[in-house]
Amino acid sequence: MTKYFNDIQQVKFEGGASKNPFAFKYYNPEEVIGEKTMKEHLRFSMAYWHTFNADGSDPFGAGTMLRPWDKFQGMDQSKARAEAAFELFGKLDMPYYAFHDVDIAPEGDTLRESFQNTDQMVAVLKDYMKASGVKLLWNTANMFTNPRYVHGAATSSNADVFAYSAAKVKKGLEVAKELGSENYVFWGGREGYDSLLNTNMGLELDNLARFMHLAVDYAKEIGYTGQFLIEPKPKEPTKHQYDFDVATALQFLQKYDLSDHFKMNIEANHATLAGHTFEHEIRVARLNGALGSLDANQGDPLLGWDTDEFPTDIYTSTLAMYEVLENGGIGSGGLNFDAKTRRSSIDPEDLVYAHIAGMDSFARGLKAAHNLRTDRVFEDAIAKRYSSFTEGIGLDIVEGKVDFKMLEKYALEHDQIKNESGRIELLRSTINQYIFEA
Amino acid sequence: MTKYFNDIQQVKFEGGASKNPFAFKYYNPEEVIGEKTMKEHLRFSMAYWHTFNADGSDPFGAGTMLRPWDKFQGMDQSKARAEAAFELFGKLDMPYYAFHDVDIAPEGDTLRESFQNTDQMVAVLKDYMKASGVKLLWNTANMFTNPRYVHGAATSSNADVFAYSAAKVKKGLEVAKELGSENYVFWGGREGYDSLLNTNMGLELDNLARFMHLAVDYAKEIGYTGQFLIEPKPKEPTKHQYDFDVATALQFLQKYDLSDHFKMNIEANHATLAGHTFEHEIRVARLNGALGSLDANQGDPLLGWDTDEFPTDIYTSTLAMYEVLENGGIGSGGLNFDAKTRRSSIDPEDLVYAHIAGMDSFARGLKAAHNLRTDRVFEDAIAKRYSSFTEGIGLDIVEGKVDFKMLEKYALEHDQIKNESGRIELLRSTINQYIFEA
Amino acid sequence: MTKYFNDIQQVKFEGGASKNPFAFKYYNPEEVIGEKTMKEHLRFSMAYWHTFNADGSDPFGAGTMLRPWDKFQGMDQSKARAEAAFELFGKLDMPYYAFHDVDIAPEGDTLRESFQNTDQMVAVLKDYMKASGVKLLWNTANMFTNPRYVHGAATSSNADVFAYSAAKVKKGLEVAKELGSENYVFWGGREGYDSLLNTNMGLELDNLARFMHLAVDYAKEIGYTGQFLIEPKPKEPTKHQYDFDVATALQFLQKYDLSDHFKMNIEANHATLAGHTFEHEIRVARLNGALGSLDANQGDPLLGWDTDEFPTDIYTSTLAMYEVLENGGIGSGGLNFDAKTRRSSIDPEDLVYAHIAGMDSFARGLKAAHNLRTDRVFEDAIAKRYSSFTEGIGLDIVEGKVDFKMLEKYALEHDQIKNESGRIELLRSTINQYIFEA
Amino acid sequence: MTKYFNDIQQVKFEGGASKNPFAFKYYNPEEVIGEKTMKEHLRFSMAYWHTFNADGSDPFGAGTMLRPWDKFQGMDQSKARAEAAFELFGKLDMPYYAFHDVDIAPEGDTLRESFQNTDQMVAVLKDYMKASGVKLLWNTANMFTNPRYVHGAATSSNADVFAYSAAKVKKGLEVAKELGSENYVFWGGREGYDSLLNTNMGLELDNLARFMHLAVDYAKEIGYTGQFLIEPKPKEPTKHQYDFDVATALQFLQKYDLSDHFKMNIEANHATLAGHTFEHEIRVARLNGALGSLDANQGDPLLGWDTDEFPTDIYTSTLAMYEVLENGGIGSGGLNFDAKTRRSSIDPEDLVYAHIAGMDSFARGLKAAHNLRTDRVFEDAIAKRYSSFTEGIGLDIVEGKVDFKMLEKYALEHDQIKNESGRIELLRSTINQYIFEA
Ligand SMILES: [Co+2]
Ligand SMILES: [Co+2]
Ligand SMILES: [Co+2]
Ligand SMILES: [Co+2]
Ligand SMILES: [Co+2]
Ligand SMILES: [Co+2]
Ligand SMILES: [Co+2]
Ligand SMILES: [Co+2]
Repeated sequence: MTKYFNDIQQVKFEGGASKNPFAFKYYNPEEVIGEKTMKEHLRFSMAYWHTFNADGSDPFGAGTMLRPWDKFQGMDQSKARAEAAFELFGKLDMPYYAFHDVDIAPEGDTLRESFQNTDQMVAVLKDYMKASGVKLLWNTANMFTNPRYVHGAATSSNADVFAYSAAKVKKGLEVAKELGSENYVFWGGREGYDSLLNTNMGLELDNLARFMHLAVDYAKEIGYTGQFLIEPKPKEPTKHQYDFDVATALQFLQKYDLSDHFKMNIEANHATLAGHTFEHEIRVARLNGALGSLDANQGDPLLGWDTDEFPTDIYTSTLAMYEVLENGGIGSGGLNFDAKTRRSSIDPEDLVYAHIAGMDSFARGLKAAHNLRTDRVFEDAIAKRYSSFTEGIGLDIVEGKVDFKMLEKYALEHDQIKNESGRIELLRSTINQYIFEA
Repeated sequence: MTKYFNDIQQVKFEGGASKNPFAFKYYNPEEVIGEKTMKEHLRFSMAYWHTFNADGSDPFGAGTMLRPWDKFQGMDQSKARAEAAFELFGKLDMPYYAFHDVDIAPEGDTLRESFQNTDQMVAVLKDYMKASGVKLLWNTANMFTNPRYVHGAATSSNADVFAYSAAKVKKGLEVAKELGSENYVFWGGREGYDSLLNTNMGLELDNLARFMHLAVDYAKEIGYTGQFLIEPKPKEPTKHQYDFDVATALQFLQKYDLSDHFKMNIEANHATLAGHTFEHEIRVARLNGALGSLDANQGDPLLGWDTDEFPTDIYTSTLAMYEVLENGGIGSGGLNFDAKTRRSSIDPEDLVYAHIAGMDSFARGLKAAHNLRTDRVFEDAIAKRYSSFTEGIGLDIVEGKVDFKMLEKYALEHDQIKNESGRIELLRSTINQYIFEA
Repeated sequence: MTKYFNDIQQVKFEGGASKNPFAFKYYNPEEVIGEKTMKEHLRFSMAYWHTFNADGSDPFGAGTMLRPWDKFQGMDQSKARAEAAFELFGKLDMPYYAFHDVDIAPEGDTLRESFQNTDQMVAVLKDYMKASGVKLLWNTANMFTNPRYVHGAATSSNADVFAYSAAKVKKGLEVAKELGSENYVFWGGREGYDSLLNTNMGLELDNLARFMHLAVDYAKEIGYTGQFLIEPKPKEPTKHQYDFDVATALQFLQKYDLSDHFKMNIEANHATLAGHTFEHEIRVARLNGALGSLDANQGDPLLGWDTDEFPTDIYTSTLAMYEVLENGGIGSGGLNFDAKTRRSSIDPEDLVYAHIAGMDSFARGLKAAHNLRTDRVFEDAIAKRYSSFTEGIGLDIVEGKVDFKMLEKYALEHDQIKNESGRIELLRSTINQYIFEA
Repeated sequence: MTKYFNDIQQVKFEGGASKNPFAFKYYNPEEVIGEKTMKEHLRFSMAYWHTFNADGSDPFGAGTMLRPWDKFQGMDQSKARAEAAFELFGKLDMPYYAFHDVDIAPEGDTLRESFQNTDQMVAVLKDYMKASGVKLLWNTANMFTNPRYVHGAATSSNADVFAYSAAKVKKGLEVAKELGSENYVFWGGREGYDSLLNTNMGLELDNLARFMHLAVDYAKEIGYTGQFLIEPKPKEPTKHQYDFDVATALQFLQKYDLSDHFKMNIEANHATLAGHTFEHEIRVARLNGALGSLDANQGDPLLGWDTDEFPTDIYTSTLAMYEVLENGGIGSGGLNFDAKTRRSSIDPEDLVYAHIAGMDSFARGLKAAHNLRTDRVFEDAIAKRYSSFTEGIGLDIVEGKVDFKMLEKYALEHDQIKNESGRIELLRSTINQYIFEA
């Protein structure tokens, strides 16, 4: 049953004492945490592009990774790649995956040919999904790689590109429906500008909104009911990406009356490039009812670009899972490993090590977060800290019973103010303890 | 008539050949650029705090600047400072100024005493303003320096601080009305968080919105008709400031139904700390009808904090003025020098050199921007670049006449796409030429 | 015996299950790790300035922390502060401390008076040290706070400042000798430039070297045998600090023939501001025989200044301790908490929580690092990875037996090169496991 | 005579009033500035790779630029590319160029074949150089693109890669001699590490030094007398590049006794990525007698990677030329445009616009810098500022006549110190004036 990853056994949970590099140390899929299993909480997903299409190339060098399916070409390669993908999903018991259209099938010389290739591969994937039970977390259209998107897709200065992009997303929605994709993602890889000097920002943003309304309309028309997601990113590849961060994307959605139709797909590395922590971006989305899904990776805080590393930072995984638990779960979203093995991790085994690294990190983070909530560590500290808003003048403020004159009167009588410590160091120490003892 | 700046003559325009350090080389107040004088276009303002209250101290060192008014104390010092301020306004022919409440009068032991001090100084300032013709661009309340704001002002975890802050803004609005302030500014110096671990972000943001609605209501009640402004800043002094950038502030205003009442006071150094250019932030505000006023300064692109340097970068001043001209002017706003002389620029003369530096930079920038517009350099390039949206499928898109199916049909027939160069290098070269030849 | 920290019991080790916030969870001073106790490995030190002099003020706000010793003034305050310091050292069983001259005694109106104040306080500290057994890790002279250092100290443009600074360091060396300080530190707080435009960098660096040679000479003259340390920092408070990072400081020492006399005091937050990890800077120093001591703190990777936070990141503490173990220990250096409680952590208790947080983090890191070494996790991976340099052409290269012609000949015959995976993801996963299971 | 750039006329100087995009506005090659012509001062060089090999691809997208020579393949393409290159050199009257080995000739299946390809193309280039008078500023070996360098070249963990790299540099030095290259450059594209966890930094740096000594030896052996240059860069493509910045490279050279043989090739964008200005890096090199050559480009201060933009910032070009003039010229180095047109600047014309942009910027900067020096603007300010070191105690310090005791005695008598303003704002204003009036 194994063909592309012959040297790799089924990866199983063996616990923290195991020295087997091909075992989970902390991710125990069926272990119940609170009211759900780890698997149900975490809803892990593999990113097709990084794992099956990428080759380790970077702006300074050619690909370093030669995969078994690279001996094929065109549609044969796509089929081999799909076969390999489902083999690896199985070995890791990965419940979800995600792809761009160009990941699964080669682009043709014409748009029609591209669609035909897509259709063939969708049928192939559908069979694999049925046989394996692996589900599609989300799909999307790659509208950034081909040179036609040099000036953008929906925000291109060229109307033909807008039309072409619309055709791609139309097909993407049809594929989403066909494969039961739980979400449909927009990451605007070229939706931004390289220079304000030659940019009609007003028209570009209006067009972007027009495009999204058309997508919403078409999904409704065909009865596709998956969740639309925007994936914010601040400044790569264009100098300024329009969906800079969660707040910016929410502003756009509000302005253009799209809020009801979109949630956020938040990527950790995009968060940090925007100057935010991952947990900040999740919190902002959560407070606005817009937490859709997560791209679980990490950046290098000393590097200024999207390094898309596999997530191993236990603080980030703990605080991200804390937000997810506060949200009552991730809904139709999941934790998608939008991450690539380092250029020097050239072996297929590295793909397995990397996913184990990420899955174990989030499993441990989930346990720590669950314990923190069970013990009400932050809840109690926060309740106490803001208790002044549950009585007296604070309650009046929250209930809208005051005006500036009343507040002035109160302040004149209560102007010798005493504050209490925020206890940040103690809370950080406590998190460490919960992580180490999880 | 001179007392504090005895060594400094009236600063006059002498042109680009002058070697007089106390002369304007490019700022010629009465020179007409387009339909207005330079003075009317630029509406320069001096920041009271940096120029008259600051002493050159930084986190690693004590004040280096001893001013003539520092021999006084308390209200006497405030009066001397005001006298010095209006002397310097006069020497630079500065049409506007701006202040925080604590800049003009000392805080008392009680809130009531603080208000009394404020009232006295407002009367003093009113007289100076009448005598000199200098106007108040904006005032604001300092709700970040005093330790009572350690956890925020309107977003404090302590309801008493909310009330105290409300009393301060109430007084600020009364002062604004009394002095005819053209705008009232909110910069949320402590409105943010230092750690998500102890923060109820939802309550804090709700409270911030409540606070602003109360301010709007009170302004209406007393008939203050100046423009409310939010000044975004991303990450100082709190780790995350709620008004991170223009887009984030707009999102907040939209969400809480405050958009009609607020515009933006955009500071250059805050823009760059948020990862944006100054002109980007102005553009975003302009496109949303929210360009209120500008804090004209600059940061050091290699340093990670708000250095508040006097603006001398000709590219930034040119592109900022370009946006202002596109906006039809800065309205009731102005160009406020929210900038401080370097810690090593210890003399009163340096205050003059610094303001000349800033005023000349923006004057030259204004001329370059005006010439770029007159010659339609960007307009024509942009019109040509987006011309596909003025006819055919592009026009249909803009006019809302298409759906995904129509676009797909079009794309299938027009899938061999040809793009045109964006010409960024040529445009940059052209800007240089307009700057050098202005 | 308790006076200033009445509410705080002696802090003791209680283990990872303890819920007592005033207990160590992981730092067990007498626990033997390898061949030494934790206490001997870690050599913790408290920073006098942050813990006893700081008040929570920042560039945007006044002090928030009122300490019991703040009711005193002048020398009385210094004495009370010293008493409080040794009380807190005792409660945490802190073996070392460190100070700047101005931390322990007030500056006088004259240099002579400053020296007299210092002498008095040195006598006081000497008694406390004798009674308690607490030792001085290092002392230094503050040559950045007073406005006289506005243009630098040893690199000032003003020769009088050079002389004044020399007098301060002379006294500092005498104090070091008197108190048995194990090291003497130079952190050049104003040794850098704010603008190249007015700076004679050549003269400034020559003067800095002259100054250090004079210090070395004087130490020799008085028989002070402690280790000289340079503490690199890149860009605060001056725009460019001459001791940018470890490599830059080493270059300076080599150029000016000072390498034999100086090692490095490496601060984590300074490392990250320079674009390096803490462990990178330690590694560079270690490879050059220049690992002197560590300032154990951490920055916020999303903020651009020196936040001097208490160190709680387990990855950094693990990898720092790994380098220390590889170095055969920290020698006469230690782990000095050059860290301040957040501005909102206003209570004396927070000082205790913060030090516990740091001490527990490094204790856990020490255990993880020790286990990694015991199991030869990195050693074996590295030995295997570089094994080609232990035989054949690789050995010839290392032994200097080849020239370009021989290498070309070899390469022409061995040009189909096969590389092996670097296994970064697996190594990261393994570190997590060692941290969780420590 | 024209074939690849048919639409482009010979670019000539037309002055600042010209509206011809294909004319120089400020670069007038034969204009004498001081004692040399502009052409002699600036020694412009075109970067073969960006201009003739690059295609506009980036990590998120395929190439956008299709060049006339792309219709050929293999050696035919290389020959066509060379023909096009010399045509463009001629149209811009570019006196120098620079290349990597792989830019000029395709890699073969074997090292021997690669060398043969190189030899053929060197003969072709030699003829073009002779016919045109265009000279080779520097050449280098690309040891980063091919996957064999995944772990480094001279610092690879694989000895075979060290040998292969040696063979490449041996050939590079032979080519340098054959073509009269004025310099030979080392940019260590993969000489660094991605993770400390798997890195033997000591061995890698020792090997790097061994490699450079071998190169020096071989150059001597074959009588190649060009200048060796190291090009520092901090953190791309490896997480940490060993030649982080000028100071780090100098430390390496000093430690390994290589200082006599190497100078620096300083790139503006590399400087800013390391946290320095371009002029800072040049200054550091200049003070250490190590200013070799300049890679004239610019980064985007808000982006965290090497954007290699054409240099148009007038401040940078002015201050860089100031340092060059202070250095007595750039010696055997030049101003090499290591810059690429933006991905959206897809036309061959854009290559011309971009080089004009860069050449005009540096020409204007040269004039401004020359005028600043002629008027002794900085010289006089600096001489005055440091005058205390030309007499009295300051002179004694500089002449080594003092010790700490003498300085203390002086300081006790001169402890009421008066400093003077550093005048940064005035100097910045003055630079603006010199730029505008150049
Ligand atoms: Co993503
Ligand atoms: Co990413
Ligand atoms: Co401001
Ligand atoms: Co500011
Ligand atoms: Co330190
Ligand atoms: Co620090
Ligand atoms: Co370069
Ligand atoms: Co570069």
